Amino acid sequence: MTDKPPVLPALDPETAKTISGSTYPGPFAARMGDRVKRKLGDACGLTHIGVNLVALAPGGQSALRHWHTSEDEFVWVLEGELTLITDAGEQVLGPGMCAGFPAGKRDAHHFVNRSGRPARYLEVGERIERDNAFYPDDDVMWVETEAGTIAARKDGRPY
Amino acid sequence: MTDKPPVLPALDPETAKTISGSTYPGPFAARMGDRVKRKLGDACGLTHIGVNLVALAPGGQSALRHWHTSEDEFVWVLEGELTLITDAGEQVLGPGMCAGFPAGKRDAHHFVNRSGRPARYLEVGERIERDNAFYPDDDVMWVETEAGTIAARKDGRPY
Repeated sequence: MTDKPPVLPALDPETAKTISGSTYPGPFAARMGDRVKRKLGDACGLTHIGVNLVALAPGGQSALRHWHTSEDEFVWVLEGELTLITDAGEQVLGPGMCAGFPAGKRDAHHFVNRSGRPARYLEVGERIERDNAFYPDDDVMWVETEAGTIAARKDGRPY
Repeated sequence: MTDKPPVLPALDPETAKTISGSTYPGPFAARMGDRVKRKLGDACGLTHIGVNLVALAPGGQSALRHWHTSEDEFVWVLEGELTLITDAGEQVLGPGMCAGFPAGKRDAHHFVNRSGRPARYLEVGERIERDNAFYPDDDVMWVETEAGTIAARKDGRPY
């Protein structure tokens, strides 16, 4: 194997831009905990598919439990243990396990790191205009409005 | 960690259906070598995104060198070494490296296993109607016709 660093279209994930924090409105963002995403799809110039390498510390969450109206999602566990929570309950996934969430399937899901060590996973999603996301456990939704897609309360009032 | 096998939406990749062989017309299919794909996206019910876990033996190829008009692609190397070949030349990628190929970018690419041991990778793509694929090194193309998408020679004659 060469020791040369990869050049695009190849990428060393460690060189990709990182994102911490969350776009959820105030009361929800902090629940994500210590979660750092590397935007691999962006770094490779992809515009239809998003691919993130996510490092999730103990206590962190992948997202609020949600489902998407229009976007498929897929997760591959690389390291550590993640608890997948869906309408049916909980299961623990380790390295080499995966999960897929079809667009429009009303089974809300998220991953929580309940272990004592960091977890890493790949998350793949789509970038579809006018996708809505719904959150059965929380008073929030991402919905399409005349002004664009916004975070609102379940009664429709914008955050 | 529990010892329970995952249930959908989670999936143990080893339980997913495998595909060997290739849909390339006759003279090209054999060049893929010993390549086995597990259709993880299908197994999870995804219809917009395809995700395959691919085992590629020494001498095998991910595909003929190609680019897509309408579909983003992404690859994550899990195990072994793969040589990525693009218009710019070659580079060797090991575990934890990745690559992304934006829709419509005219930089044909494929991965060849030139090492002496098996490689494994995840490949992610889209399922867009009327995507075309072009192959600069070979007399083949997937193109849209009145009869649907077909494999043809570069002069347009169907295989």
